[in-house]
Amino acid sequence: MAGTAIIGLGAMGQGMARNILAAGIPLSGFDLSPDARGRFAKAGGRTGDDAADLVADCDLLLVMVATAAQAEAALFGGVTDALAPGAVVILSSTVAPSEARAIAARLNDAGHVMLDAPVSGGQVGAESGTLTIMASGPPAAFERADALLAAVSKKVHRLGDEPGMGATYKVVHQLAAGVHLVAAAELMAFGAKAGCDPQTLLDIVSSSAGQSWMMDDRVPRMMQVDPVATSTVDIFIKDLGLVVQSARDSGVPVPLAAAAYQMMVGAGGMGLGRHDDSAVIRAYEALTNCKVTES
Amino acid sequence: MAGTAIIGLGAMGQGMARNILAAGIPLSGFDLSPDARGRFAKAGGRTGDDAADLVADCDLLLVMVATAAQAEAALFGGVTDALAPGAVVILSSTVAPSEARAIAARLNDAGHVMLDAPVSGGQVGAESGTLTIMASGPPAAFERADALLAAVSKKVHRLGDEPGMGATYKVVHQLAAGVHLVAAAELMAFGAKAGCDPQTLLDIVSSSAGQSWMMDDRVPRMMQVDPVATSTVDIFIKDLGLVVQSARDSGVPVPLAAAAYQMMVGAGGMGLGRHDDSAVIRAYEALTNCKVTES
Repeated sequence: MAGTAIIGLGAMGQGMARNILAAGIPLSGFDLSPDARGRFAKAGGRTGDDAADLVADCDLLLVMVATAAQAEAALFGGVTDALAPGAVVILSSTVAPSEARAIAARLNDAGHVMLDAPVSGGQVGAESGTLTIMASGPPAAFERADALLAAVSKKVHRLGDEPGMGATYKVVHQLAAGVHLVAAAELMAFGAKAGCDPQTLLDIVSSSAGQSWMMDDRVPRMMQVDPVATSTVDIFIKDLGLVVQSARDSGVPVPLAAAAYQMMVGAGGMGLGRHDDSAVIRAYEALTNCKVTES
Repeated sequence: MAGTAIIGLGAMGQGMARNILAAGIPLSGFDLSPDARGRFAKAGGRTGDDAADLVADCDLLLVMVATAAQAEAALFGGVTDALAPGAVVILSSTVAPSEARAIAARLNDAGHVMLDAPVSGGQVGAESGTLTIMASGPPAAFERADALLAAVSKKVHRLGDEPGMGATYKVVHQLAAGVHLVAAAELMAFGAKAGCDPQTLLDIVSSSAGQSWMMDDRVPRMMQVDPVATSTVDIFIKDLGLVVQSARDSGVPVPLAAAAYQMMVGAGGMGLGRHDDSAVIRAYEALTNCKVTES
């Protein structure tokens, strides 16, 4: 059997790579960052400074970079020529449905097939191998990818044969995740300014009809002065931008997602782009002159 | 010991009354609707067509009407004069913090004390006696109300001695509940228009980072053509109006709540005010010319 490779060894790819290796699948990996390659090599992966060399004759390639532009740069500068003919490329980046379809078409032209397979679960899910995968593509591609997907996820949703549907479900999902994240910040800022104790407020809302996964996960980090960044403000500016643009492309007004997008852009504008996405609370703190974080 | 009474036997009050009776507390009850009084009498309550007569000499009164204006009309047209001196009035309606403080002051002037005690959990929680109560008021008022509160709730949060704090926590909580409800509709409309299967989309989001209590509870009703109304669009127009106004009073911009409010107002404008609040999906269906509901 020909080999397996990964391109993109950042917050998400690094954890996924380790779980693939742990499942006994030999893995070649590339990232533009020598540091990321070094961490991957320590975990038992084969790496080097030339992506095309590393993927030579591989018939399965996982792409876990941040944007569609990065995925295109990674794939179409030599990598597609180096892969074994008819290789399966799993695109797990969050991209617009139209971008997923365009990349799939270019891969088909190069003689390969694409599995449109974005993930949910964040860095924690990537590290623990418990991601949720939303995937569409040809049945044969699912068959070749099966062991790899099982190694990184708790659940693979099969969403038909057409690339674009995986991306559609992921982008629609991000509407909820993004709105709930910003709503949690809006709630905590309102509460703090109105005299509520932040922890008591979280306890009450979290056990009532106002509960959300995002609130449970992010509000504790909103109350820290300098939390560890698991997923960044910049990533959510990108994702909410995809939501607003893709919804417009579909003819769907999304007033809540649009408002959430603007607040996340504001957090970016404050210089917090590389901070944890819970830093959107800082935009509300600035607008209310009131701290949710301990000082 | 003097008696206990309730005013307001609607969707919420009726269930709470039954649980109070089930706890062995004799209860007099009033509602403007003869139908509601009839149901209460069948459940074992003492009722009649004159509120002041019914509460005569009671030293504990639960008020569970829809608005602050209704609470004032119920209390200050003879009821406060009929109550035993120094009675405890539990105000469980969702009202603005400023309204809760104003009603408490008028009750104090009349020689009574108020427990500011709004609830979360909806009609289901009222019927099963599992409401969450957010309460503030004098310790002696808590003591007198203790057995009644225990009969209707799974948890009483004590939020200090000052009336207004219970209402504050409730209104802040409603920001999350309202935004999550409308976000669930926005998500389902976007997904349906973009080609997602509604049930598959719900399953995926509900088990991922986009999960919320409101999504789990309301989206199944959004997919029904004519769901039973548990809480109405009109009630949420009122609650989100309180959120936006109270946040403004506190100097807090709430762009997500404001957008959710407008969509809920739109559902009301479509003539759906007395429908289940999940009918906000109809506003999105109208704007996208696409159905989430089975037809």
